[in-house]
Amino acid sequence: MPEDRLTHLNEQGEANMVDVSGKAPTKRVAKAQSSITMTQAAFDAVNQGDLKKGDALGTARLAGIMAAKKTSDLIPLCHPLMLNKVEVEITPASDAPRFDINATVSVEGKTGVEMEALTAASVAALTLYDMAKALDKAMVIGPTELVAKSGGKSGDYQRS
Amino acid sequence: MPEDRLTHLNEQGEANMVDVSGKAPTKRVAKAQSSITMTQAAFDAVNQGDLKKGDALGTARLAGIMAAKKTSDLIPLCHPLMLNKVEVEITPASDAPRFDINATVSVEGKTGVEMEALTAASVAALTLYDMAKALDKAMVIGPTELVAKSGGKSGDYQRS
Amino acid sequence: MPEDRLTHLNEQGEANMVDVSGKAPTKRVAKAQSSITMTQAAFDAVNQGDLKKGDALGTARLAGIMAAKKTSDLIPLCHPLMLNKVEVEITPASDAPRFDINATVSVEGKTGVEMEALTAASVAALTLYDMAKALDKAMVIGPTELVAKSGGKSGDYQRS
Amino acid sequence: MPEDRLTHLNEQGEANMVDVSGKAPTKRVAKAQSSITMTQAAFDAVNQGDLKKGDALGTARLAGIMAAKKTSDLIPLCHPLMLNKVEVEITPASDAPRFDINATVSVEGKTGVEMEALTAASVAALTLYDMAKALDKAMVIGPTELVAKSGGKSGDYQRS
Amino acid sequence: MPEDRLTHLNEQGEANMVDVSGKAPTKRVAKAQSSITMTQAAFDAVNQGDLKKGDALGTARLAGIMAAKKTSDLIPLCHPLMLNKVEVEITPASDAPRFDINATVSVEGKTGVEMEALTAASVAALTLYDMAKALDKAMVIGPTELVAKSGGKSGDYQRS
Amino acid sequence: MPEDRLTHLNEQGEANMVDVSGKAPTKRVAKAQSSITMTQAAFDAVNQGDLKKGDALGTARLAGIMAAKKTSDLIPLCHPLMLNKVEVEITPASDAPRFDINATVSVEGKTGVEMEALTAASVAALTLYDMAKALDKAMVIGPTELVAKSGGKSGDYQRS
Repeated sequence: MPEDRLTHLNEQGEANMVDVSGKAPTKRVAKAQSSITMTQAAFDAVNQGDLKKGDALGTARLAGIMAAKKTSDLIPLCHPLMLNKVEVEITPASDAPRFDINATVSVEGKTGVEMEALTAASVAALTLYDMAKALDKAMVIGPTELVAKSGGKSGDYQRS
Repeated sequence: MPEDRLTHLNEQGEANMVDVSGKAPTKRVAKAQSSITMTQAAFDAVNQGDLKKGDALGTARLAGIMAAKKTSDLIPLCHPLMLNKVEVEITPASDAPRFDINATVSVEGKTGVEMEALTAASVAALTLYDMAKALDKAMVIGPTELVAKSGGKSGDYQRS
Repeated sequence: MPEDRLTHLNEQGEANMVDVSGKAPTKRVAKAQSSITMTQAAFDAVNQGDLKKGDALGTARLAGIMAAKKTSDLIPLCHPLMLNKVEVEITPASDAPRFDINATVSVEGKTGVEMEALTAASVAALTLYDMAKALDKAMVIGPTELVAKSGGKSGDYQRS
Repeated sequence: MPEDRLTHLNEQGEANMVDVSGKAPTKRVAKAQSSITMTQAAFDAVNQGDLKKGDALGTARLAGIMAAKKTSDLIPLCHPLMLNKVEVEITPASDAPRFDINATVSVEGKTGVEMEALTAASVAALTLYDMAKALDKAMVIGPTELVAKSGGKSGDYQRS
Repeated sequence: MPEDRLTHLNEQGEANMVDVSGKAPTKRVAKAQSSITMTQAAFDAVNQGDLKKGDALGTARLAGIMAAKKTSDLIPLCHPLMLNKVEVEITPASDAPRFDINATVSVEGKTGVEMEALTAASVAALTLYDMAKALDKAMVIGPTELVAKSGGKSGDYQRS
Repeated sequence: MPEDRLTHLNEQGEANMVDVSGKAPTKRVAKAQSSITMTQAAFDAVNQGDLKKGDALGTARLAGIMAAKKTSDLIPLCHPLMLNKVEVEITPASDAPRFDINATVSVEGKTGVEMEALTAASVAALTLYDMAKALDKAMVIGPTELVAKSGGKSGDYQRS
């Protein structure tokens, strides 16, 4: 059941970190997805790199994983968390020159890891942009969205 | 004129930071955009917050600006740069419950600031997601894309 | 009951992180305060900014919150902690052109959060200095001090 | 000649990094000071540590130096700078149980280093608080203030 | 009993953070060692500095301690951990102009702290190199190795 | 011509960042090497991973590159630098189960990049340790040493 106001703002409308003192740590998982669409030439260069040596897609995967660990440093009101797992998968789409990015993050903590999963997917996409930008500057990142979350008081969520 | 291979990979397909030793520092500007679409209720809560106290949109703007300064720490092969300016604008769209994000970054350096502008726009969008996620988990971020760049050997670019 | 030596130094006088292995995590809260005194003109500019758009004081508040999360990176011998809450309040003083800063940090951990609260208050003050320094370079930050702490073996503390 | 508005806020009152594109890099120096006052017992413990092994004051000096390098990460609208020098001196006061902290930072850049000097002095003081807090929780940090700056369009400043 | 494949790679050979969700936090300790060998003149300068004021070796010790806290930021697939203790000892060798570095890290967590101990020892050695490099560029760091670990499912380890 | 004292210590033996204000930026290059020796089984697992998918060695290469950019954050008295290039090569040795790591860093700056090259090589080695530690805990890192440097007032250096 969604609340009716922005939880990060207090009654004076000031941004603050929410107090999670009273919450018990529970197992939480979040999955997010993003994608990057590019020209066929750029797609082929990235994808071929992967088949040969793995460094193009591997670099983006690692960047996403490392970014998940920096989430509380990037998103001002996020709580620091000791992540249990971060996984980033990048798969070439079959219907277009596009890479689909899926990030899964899990934790045993007092707050969810939606932002960590969304950050991992976003930074993996940005890194693919960086890898291929000499070939194509018109690449489009997104839509970036939460796929599912489980655990925590607000209940489970599954993108319909 | 785009090159025909991924510039961050060497001939063995290994990822490396490109050598910019021979390049002279020039004035470079990049503009990127992103957006976040949400329910009308979430949109109203974020937007009203802004009219009253500014903290919801202001927090996202600041997060974007600070993220631009972390770009070389987030994107593995980006060069560190002394940015001259970072500006993030977030405007409520008139045709839908959506916030449009525009980031402009400039530098006098040896490499462009496309990644810094894209990172600023992405992290501002992620922060808005974080601010409003108690109200709406189905928010959609993106498309995130480069709007324009100027300066540097590869010439100017303007999204058509 | 205060100890009679510097706990961060070992018997050879060498600085080290204290071992907290044997301590159980308990609920701990710390409150710190700082202030920044400036000319009436600078005060008015900052304060008016707040009434209109909130960005001057809001930026300082956010900077303080984010700095609390970086405390173990800034203070060499601090333990990393998963903070439950950080709150920074900045209020215009009534008796002088001065902003008073109050930071509250809570955690469920093995060490206290005095340093996190003091760091949050200090960086919020530094950020206000940065915002107003074109108007007044003679601004004075402080006194910065611990207001109260609770939890932990060393007992509660309340500034008298 | 001070300006009449907050330079970090644009005409809409929104916080942004100032554009320094048009400015030429010049030699700039800033000096800041802070202090920390404590009980005689805490003062003796810190000071004796220094005479013997140097680690108490040495740790605070290093923390200040390293913090100067993190200034643009801590203060949201500060430009990243390649500092030429950071020096932190901590001297025991003769008239009271107090340590005086002086920080000097220099750069050849487009913006001044007042914030870097103030940050170095503040974090050195915070670190001394951390070192001695088991002995005295009522220590007082500050006043923290700019002592002098030179270089840049706004001219030199010397605290009177 | 060692496993027969690289645990950080999944079945497709892709690097990912291992999932530690099912593991219970236990007390874990790791000890690592490194060393740096240099000319007698450089050794004397570093060592004398220590006897007098402590700053050369003290700086390296602190750098090692702070680096341990950054391990999950440096090593891409390391989990973030709330370290209980980091201790770095640097001792002049008696048989050669060499400093021996021992780092001990402990945690109550789901993964071991071998990497934290190895990182602390390595960065302490690198910092000594930095301190003495004007005197001797041919200094040799290492061997760097794990001395012992205890705790965790994989059992204890003691270097033979 | 080496100097006769530790340049990072002042006359009182206190550690400080050296002042490079008077130095002109010049082209500087540094090369460093490290290695990691392991059991044949661990070596085969890492190396095979590379032939198939590249992620084991690729992860270590990226970690080294990213660490070079963090050098001034890790080594307390290092100046921040805008690196022109970082390259890390990891090659399987032919005479033993060992990986040899070579890092090359270049900059146009006021100080050399020896520490950046040594840091890149060290962190690449540490990352390989992390990748293979489930197979072999007795791996040995090093010797880690400077191979060559050019540029700067102190002249060129070539390991003999």
